[in-house]
Amino acid sequence: MICEVLSVGTEILLGSIVNTNSQVISESLSSIGVTVYKHSTIGDNPTRLKEAIIDSLEKSNIIIMTGGLGPTDDDLTKEIVCQVLGVELELDEMSLDQIKKIFDKNGYTMSANNLKQAYFPKNSIIIKNNNGTANGMILNINDNIIILLPGPPNECVPMLKHTVIPYLKKLSKYKFNSTYLNFIGIGESELEAKLSHLIKNQSNPTIAPYANVGTVTLRITEKTKLGDDDYSKAEEVIKEVENIVGEFLYSKQNESIEEYIVKKMIEKGETISIAESCTGGMLSSSLVDVKGASKVFAEGIIAYDNESKINRLGVKRATIEKYGAVSEQTAREMAIGIRGDSSIGIAITGVSEGGEKEGVTFIGVSYKNKVNIFRYAFTSERNINRMKSVKKALEILKMILN
Amino acid sequence: MICEVLSVGTEILLGSIVNTNSQVISESLSSIGVTVYKHSTIGDNPTRLKEAIIDSLEKSNIIIMTGGLGPTDDDLTKEIVCQVLGVELELDEMSLDQIKKIFDKNGYTMSANNLKQAYFPKNSIIIKNNNGTANGMILNINDNIIILLPGPPNECVPMLKHTVIPYLKKLSKYKFNSTYLNFIGIGESELEAKLSHLIKNQSNPTIAPYANVGTVTLRITEKTKLGDDDYSKAEEVIKEVENIVGEFLYSKQNESIEEYIVKKMIEKGETISIAESCTGGMLSSSLVDVKGASKVFAEGIIAYDNESKINRLGVKRATIEKYGAVSEQTAREMAIGIRGDSSIGIAITGVSEGGEKEGVTFIGVSYKNKVNIFRYAFTSERNINRMKSVKKALEILKMILN
Repeated sequence: MICEVLSVGTEILLGSIVNTNSQVISESLSSIGVTVYKHSTIGDNPTRLKEAIIDSLEKSNIIIMTGGLGPTDDDLTKEIVCQVLGVELELDEMSLDQIKKIFDKNGYTMSANNLKQAYFPKNSIIIKNNNGTANGMILNINDNIIILLPGPPNECVPMLKHTVIPYLKKLSKYKFNSTYLNFIGIGESELEAKLSHLIKNQSNPTIAPYANVGTVTLRITEKTKLGDDDYSKAEEVIKEVENIVGEFLYSKQNESIEEYIVKKMIEKGETISIAESCTGGMLSSSLVDVKGASKVFAEGIIAYDNESKINRLGVKRATIEKYGAVSEQTAREMAIGIRGDSSIGIAITGVSEGGEKEGVTFIGVSYKNKVNIFRYAFTSERNINRMKSVKKALEILKMILN
Repeated sequence: MICEVLSVGTEILLGSIVNTNSQVISESLSSIGVTVYKHSTIGDNPTRLKEAIIDSLEKSNIIIMTGGLGPTDDDLTKEIVCQVLGVELELDEMSLDQIKKIFDKNGYTMSANNLKQAYFPKNSIIIKNNNGTANGMILNINDNIIILLPGPPNECVPMLKHTVIPYLKKLSKYKFNSTYLNFIGIGESELEAKLSHLIKNQSNPTIAPYANVGTVTLRITEKTKLGDDDYSKAEEVIKEVENIVGEFLYSKQNESIEEYIVKKMIEKGETISIAESCTGGMLSSSLVDVKGASKVFAEGIIAYDNESKINRLGVKRATIEKYGAVSEQTAREMAIGIRGDSSIGIAITGVSEGGEKEGVTFIGVSYKNKVNIFRYAFTSERNINRMKSVKKALEILKMILN
């Protein structure tokens, strides 16, 4: 089954909103083995809409359309689909009732425009919208399935999950099982180069890397027939990936490095205090983002100026004067100073300058009876350098927690 | 000038990532008067890529493509564009140098794959990427402009803003003069309702609101012929907007609330220290993000556990025991405790629970000889509640700095 996701809405083309529906639809379809071959977005324009529908019908056997089901004259998706397919619209009394009730409940008068929302293509399956007046619909004609959903994500997504996906799942002959491997400390291109023999020859399972700042995720997906639970081909690939780049693998659970660190610290009973300078609270904030962080995170000090480093962290004035605030020595004293009653103290001090100037960061870690200092140089823009410093700190935490 | 935005990447079609680039590109093009007639996304598949490029060339005179400029065999955008246009690739020594330097600096080995990233279509304009190895390019052939940008937003967006938009702006017969009005303390729908008579009847200038978490920006764009500097129509609209919702306007400079706060503090010679609990460093981090923050930001304490509130901020144990860590009284003592030698002390303490439970946040501000406490309730998800708390703190700072 091959699908195109066709979004309708001038507001998307103007950049007024991000098209998140396409992502949610694609993700849901992937999970049931429907291949999405294209996303398209067009404006509220009848000629282009018609062209786009005809074009999609040539290439896909499923089209999922979002938007253009509202009550205004601009909302034309249903009407154009019926034109293209030569299907008539007919009144659905249940939908009319439902719309009337919504208006009554909100104390508004139903306008003549809204009557339009109670009409549906003959023989279509109506998808009830619990969050608005625009019901959706499924048309199954000549082996083509066309599904129309409203544009607002809070209406579209529940209708997709509760009705569309179960409907399509019944039609599929295959299942898809994905494993996500999470890496840190290796770049996307280096990872790909090391695994190129696997990536080049992939068919089933498929292998796809995704890069974030500082981390890379590898998705390995095996397709099997319904009822067949043998995923040994994926397992073999995973084993080989581990043999080659296992040292950079931190999780097989599709979790962020922050989630992994917090989970690992809870498991090992560790607690952490964090001193930050150039990263201004980003490391602390990224850990506090994780549910359960309160079990491991004690406190953070953003010692941006030197007085704060001296007063709050006990860095010696002489150290800063002799070596500078961005130095191995200052990072060491900050890490020792912040640790307190926590089992881990970590400190970041650096210059995040971007552009021509190189950003330099020192990270100090006080753990057990040792203090280790790491130095990094970054060449990106200021805020990217800061994010990279945070990821390096997380990479160091991963090392000591292993 | 009519444009299609063509995104390349199987990861988008699989729903692994949201296509935010298309929105940013569309928004930027709108602001310089380029009409976007379509967004398309296709996978890393040479046949479909070729079809899509040929199709776009028929309908648009500008194509902006993102993705597929990486070092792997899957990355084919540049190669296919050259095939379609009949243009050769040639080595760019400067780009090669740049890539080598990035690998050297990060301590990685440059793989043979990366060499590919130093090749560009003959006679193309190279767009330097300051955040990665994939430089972009502009091809201007037979009145068609094809622009290739890398997929990762942190690379794509700066290249778009610094090079692509200024390049396209020069080619237009019209000028677009945009004023961005920045609001805080009013929601997008409330703002739209109050300005609906202006928004409904717009043609020139155009008026478009954009919402962020906690802030709204209104773009007012007047189109004039090159050489015509009469923007009086926009000025009239701006005046009327100010009359209606001026109390929520913090800037006419298209700046973030963080940038405004830092600028204003520098102007007034204020300095700030910040104590955070539930927001875990987000407020500090958001201010430190701003260039020049070191002039105003003294220090931040992330007092996540009660001991830290007591030891670092001097909150009385009795206060926490009697009123709780999330209370007006604790917020007050935190604000007083953090201020130190700074002219402003601000403290956030709250429960960011989302879902069924309401998130409650207290913000305390110590300024001059007064301490004020504000209470907020939020009903979104955990991390959105935290972001809203941060914006409320910034809104309070805006009030006291006015």
